[in-house]
Amino acid sequence: MEELKQKIMAEGTAMTGGIIKVDSFLNHQIDPQLMYRAAQEFIKRFENEDYNKILTIEASGIAPAIMVGFITGKPVVFAKKAIPKTMNDAYVSEIFSFTKKESRTVYVSREFLKKGDRILFIDDFLANGDTAMGISNIIKFAEAELVGMGFIIEKSFQQGAKNLRELGIRVESLAMIESTEGDQFHFRN
Amino acid sequence: MEELKQKIMAEGTAMTGGIIKVDSFLNHQIDPQLMYRAAQEFIKRFENEDYNKILTIEASGIAPAIMVGFITGKPVVFAKKAIPKTMNDAYVSEIFSFTKKESRTVYVSREFLKKGDRILFIDDFLANGDTAMGISNIIKFAEAELVGMGFIIEKSFQQGAKNLRELGIRVESLAMIESTEGDQFHFRN
Repeated sequence: MEELKQKIMAEGTAMTGGIIKVDSFLNHQIDPQLMYRAAQEFIKRFENEDYNKILTIEASGIAPAIMVGFITGKPVVFAKKAIPKTMNDAYVSEIFSFTKKESRTVYVSREFLKKGDRILFIDDFLANGDTAMGISNIIKFAEAELVGMGFIIEKSFQQGAKNLRELGIRVESLAMIESTEGDQFHFRN
Repeated sequence: MEELKQKIMAEGTAMTGGIIKVDSFLNHQIDPQLMYRAAQEFIKRFENEDYNKILTIEASGIAPAIMVGFITGKPVVFAKKAIPKTMNDAYVSEIFSFTKKESRTVYVSREFLKKGDRILFIDDFLANGDTAMGISNIIKFAEAELVGMGFIIEKSFQQGAKNLRELGIRVESLAMIESTEGDQFHFRN
């Protein structure tokens, strides 16, 4: 998605440890119009797939996911990183975060993920794929079906996309960063 | 907002301790169309106010806030509950949650909240107003201006709305729950 690459080049920062800072339009400040157009692109890429629900994870996945849900008229569920008092029966998966160097647990209530649900997962970043793998496990626990995973930004210099594709998961990333060099980003086409 | 009240009556649950469970359309599964219409209602109520930025807090505030940003073409910033590695200069406020009986810190980067910014704050729930008060402090630290606060659901049986209004803050809530009785909700008009 050309507009997104331009935005990353103009406003993104490559930090040490492979961290990409895009806080001006995705991870802290959000550009809602860009999220809408990213959603349109996800919908186009997955137009031959049949899905009835969008799944994401709090917090930065919510904006693009909600736009996919808005355009397609489908509900969005966001996986939680802590179990709230209102949730008493959840699918649970342990995830190790590369960025934060810690392990954490994600939760999706059994109320909103059912056997037979056909799920499109949307998130902000694909790095090592740990979160995506945890989500894929949760979908399996629920006997639901994962039709694909869409990411705003893929760090192609990490293993996530490769790992997910080896599991037979369809992955679509709107900007694939192959390498960074100072403030320069090199994208994969 | 009549549609919202109907939705709360049909799908909401009143739990012990004044907790309202609306996980089917707001706090876990999200109804994007309803969020869009809630945003339209917020925009209508604040139509005489001049604001250039929407502020919310992760995670459940993001969906309605992003829709307000989308319709008005304004950027959305979500306050964070933990400081990420990409943020190195933040406004910070300590919030004591009466619901959770614990204190937590919220962060907004100085990059995205500037002196003179005119802020509309949007969130899912107004209960005791602790979060809103913390946000109001952050806006003051930044020498920005808070033009108003919009909430999807107000628990009118708690003190938040009263406390905020006493500080001169304009509060608009789309559904005001005055009391609950078993599975019954009583709304304030």
